[in-house]
Amino acid sequence: MTDQGRRRARGGGGAARRAERSAVRIEAARYIERAIPDLEILNAEALEIIETNAETVLAEIGVTFAENPAALDRWRAAGAEVEGERVRLPRGLARKLCATAPAHFTQIARNPERNVEVGGRNLVLAPVYGPPFVHDVDGGRRYATIEDFRSFVKLGYMSKWLHHSGGTVCEPTDIPVSKRHLDMLHAHMTLSDKPFMGSVTEPSRARDSVEMCEILFGPLEGRTAMTSLININSPLTFDATMMGALEVYAEANQAAIISPFVVGGAMAPASVAGTLTQVLAEVMAGVAYSQLVRPGAPVIAGTFVTSIDMNSGAPTFGTPEASQITYGMGQLARRLGLPYRSAGAFTGAKLPDAQAAYETSNSLNMGLLSGVNFMLHACGWLEGGLVASFEKFVMDADQLGILHRLAAGVDMSEEAQAMDAIREVGPGGHYLGCSHTQRNFKDAFWRSEVLDYKPYETWVEDGARDTPKIAAARVSKLLGDYVQPPLDPGISEALDAYVARRKSEITDSFA
Amino acid sequence: MTDQGRRRARGGGGAARRAERSAVRIEAARYIERAIPDLEILNAEALEIIETNAETVLAEIGVTFAENPAALDRWRAAGAEVEGERVRLPRGLARKLCATAPAHFTQIARNPERNVEVGGRNLVLAPVYGPPFVHDVDGGRRYATIEDFRSFVKLGYMSKWLHHSGGTVCEPTDIPVSKRHLDMLHAHMTLSDKPFMGSVTEPSRARDSVEMCEILFGPLEGRTAMTSLININSPLTFDATMMGALEVYAEANQAAIISPFVVGGAMAPASVAGTLTQVLAEVMAGVAYSQLVRPGAPVIAGTFVTSIDMNSGAPTFGTPEASQITYGMGQLARRLGLPYRSAGAFTGAKLPDAQAAYETSNSLNMGLLSGVNFMLHACGWLEGGLVASFEKFVMDADQLGILHRLAAGVDMSEEAQAMDAIREVGPGGHYLGCSHTQRNFKDAFWRSEVLDYKPYETWVEDGARDTPKIAAARVSKLLGDYVQPPLDPGISEALDAYVARRKSEITDSFA
Repeated sequence: MTDQGRRRARGGGGAARRAERSAVRIEAARYIERAIPDLEILNAEALEIIETNAETVLAEIGVTFAENPAALDRWRAAGAEVEGERVRLPRGLARKLCATAPAHFTQIARNPERNVEVGGRNLVLAPVYGPPFVHDVDGGRRYATIEDFRSFVKLGYMSKWLHHSGGTVCEPTDIPVSKRHLDMLHAHMTLSDKPFMGSVTEPSRARDSVEMCEILFGPLEGRTAMTSLININSPLTFDATMMGALEVYAEANQAAIISPFVVGGAMAPASVAGTLTQVLAEVMAGVAYSQLVRPGAPVIAGTFVTSIDMNSGAPTFGTPEASQITYGMGQLARRLGLPYRSAGAFTGAKLPDAQAAYETSNSLNMGLLSGVNFMLHACGWLEGGLVASFEKFVMDADQLGILHRLAAGVDMSEEAQAMDAIREVGPGGHYLGCSHTQRNFKDAFWRSEVLDYKPYETWVEDGARDTPKIAAARVSKLLGDYVQPPLDPGISEALDAYVARRKSEITDSFA
Repeated sequence: MTDQGRRRARGGGGAARRAERSAVRIEAARYIERAIPDLEILNAEALEIIETNAETVLAEIGVTFAENPAALDRWRAAGAEVEGERVRLPRGLARKLCATAPAHFTQIARNPERNVEVGGRNLVLAPVYGPPFVHDVDGGRRYATIEDFRSFVKLGYMSKWLHHSGGTVCEPTDIPVSKRHLDMLHAHMTLSDKPFMGSVTEPSRARDSVEMCEILFGPLEGRTAMTSLININSPLTFDATMMGALEVYAEANQAAIISPFVVGGAMAPASVAGTLTQVLAEVMAGVAYSQLVRPGAPVIAGTFVTSIDMNSGAPTFGTPEASQITYGMGQLARRLGLPYRSAGAFTGAKLPDAQAAYETSNSLNMGLLSGVNFMLHACGWLEGGLVASFEKFVMDADQLGILHRLAAGVDMSEEAQAMDAIREVGPGGHYLGCSHTQRNFKDAFWRSEVLDYKPYETWVEDGARDTPKIAAARVSKLLGDYVQPPLDPGISEALDAYVARRKSEITDSFA
């Protein structure tokens, strides 16, 4: 090659590299496949006591299926004792019914690379769900709008360690309750290519969700395209709205997270063993019911538990009792052979400050080690779930990278054993320049994209920013860099048309 | 009783209660005794590979004992191959020598209720060690003084979840290096009644430490009164100063934490398996040497590891690689039958903000679950250990309460099973008023003494304080409430006299 040729090649290469640098690269990690064990804090005797007690609860106390005659009929036919709305399950019945639920299932995404496999040793991470407020460091706390919702979906799409777009990432309070599910689903379907959740606030909205999925994916033919959140009204009550949505989803083979929402001391006993007993009874009854609707319907055994501050009555997060329940329910769910949902970026803090991070880290670490398969609220949650925080969303999402690395276990290859490096460097030497380090440094250590690693003096020169200030810059950058993932124009128009038609059919309602 | 009598009694009772309320109650938790298992991330094959590789390092590469002819003589006598300052240990020698080190030992405190048992399933928590700077939210960052040092000792004494007063809680830079160990030990001995650490910066200062202990405790007669920090100069180098201090302590049956200080990628290979190999080799050589000095001398297998940010060269904390090394070394230390030191409230953050708390919580949780027996730096560390933060000290110390509750495991008593409560409340009920809750609510859930649990509106009215602001108030309160624990005046005077005499004998030196 002539000098000129070489120079041209270099120039071309440089331009290509510049183009590559300026192009928006969306990296998306695959769901976590654990190579490390779970932490098992309950011994065999404790597990058996809790399982026996849960059967006693179901057989002697029973559960209420409120305002749902069809459910009562199903229970009666299955051999339960029905008295008014109270359903008592003979010992063993719930566990027997749970056995038809799959141990794992695939949830499809419109980008097949983003499909997730829920269950087994896997962990799927999804963002915050449900807050009526949003918070950012400049504007503070305010009611959430559909524009906020769209921003969070975009951030979720841009977040490498998030496998799932979630559901109600915040409540778009500027849209009537009766219609907002359409805008929310439309946002997940068009602004992201990751899997998402369906509406559960009315059976008709669950049906809309299924129909929109059939536009996006074509006929589902048994494929699971949504994982939706079905809460149990603890203690021991299953309301008609949530069960109605569950029925729609189970019939369509769409997945449901069947989840008690428990503040210990208020909706469950003020003890870990007692709460575990009630939660297990509730989950077993709910999963059993899903299998009465359609044997083989995909479900996740959910557990949202926290404790109460007995001084103020406020729910508290990242507490040791919540951790014990999460670890224990992991063991109990595995004995049931069901995928498990728990943990999240929980905090009661009002700001994305140290309290928020302590409580969140306690919960994220426990989520990894308790064998959780589906972690809702894995980023962005603030103030006991009342608030979705933009900065905390990217701060937490960054921490999720740590879970990926930890879960991968220790590389024991010859290269990783690094005996050549120890020989080369020897006593008193330095590893920075050795050939093993040169070969491995790029991937040797996880690196945060949010936290500050600068020396003190540089950090001061850069404005002495705390974590939320640094995160605010990242939020702006991600939203600025965002490019909508391509979608077939025919599908896009059909989705628009469906939303427009349903909006014209539905009456406005804000309740 | 007449009405008047009753009124007097009431008045007296009220006064007594008021007196009780105003008295300073120093609660001190007993060291943690784990009722939960450790997390074991390395399988048997991986452990054997690392152990075999560590023996290869000791036999073929060896370690350097610098400027220490007596150490080389000891090694030669023990059967090692000595070439210059390089010591090569035939396979099996180090492990054989380690076998005489005790699996656990008692460190006494001047209040016998504060004695700690190091080893087994226990976890002893000690504060930050070594920072030349202090930080508080009002004054920012500045060089530490002996008054700061005393304040930290007082905070440690007032911190319920801290079992140990530590050592160099900050460097009192206003006192010459050659003399400051005297003031530091004097502070630990007189301002606290918890166990503490001795000086390691010179063999003569280690001897002063032992002599001051003999004043405080009387003749030690084999009792262990100090646990001191002996760092290894990684890779594979043992310097004469640290080894000199180790020799003094081992001869006096005082405990040493023998600890590589490793930033992975700089002082050890850029891989977890390689770092574990080197760290194990270093710990085995160091512990073996302590047993050559005095078989049976109490030691702790220490591991201070972190990773490097390959972009900036800065050490990073709370990272997954550091966690993997900590978990792995826990397994390796247990196989050696030695107490284990690792983890701490590590962070690279410059402020006690979310970054600080994320990194700290990652490390504290891992410390509990990796089987650490002695956790130095369990509270107060900031900015990669350059800074001791007053606010973070009380923030972290509060989080240590969580470790206590988690470690205790799940209460499976009949009362905790709470079947009566589940029966009493039933479907749709509420547990707040039930008799089980009334009996148990006070101790049912761990409660932070720093974090904010107030509703949003109350929090705003109270000044919308973030965690460090709330913590600053707690620092002031604890220091204001502090009362020196009583000490025999004769001992107190003898300690004063010893410090005065040694200060008159020692030349000022700031290096």
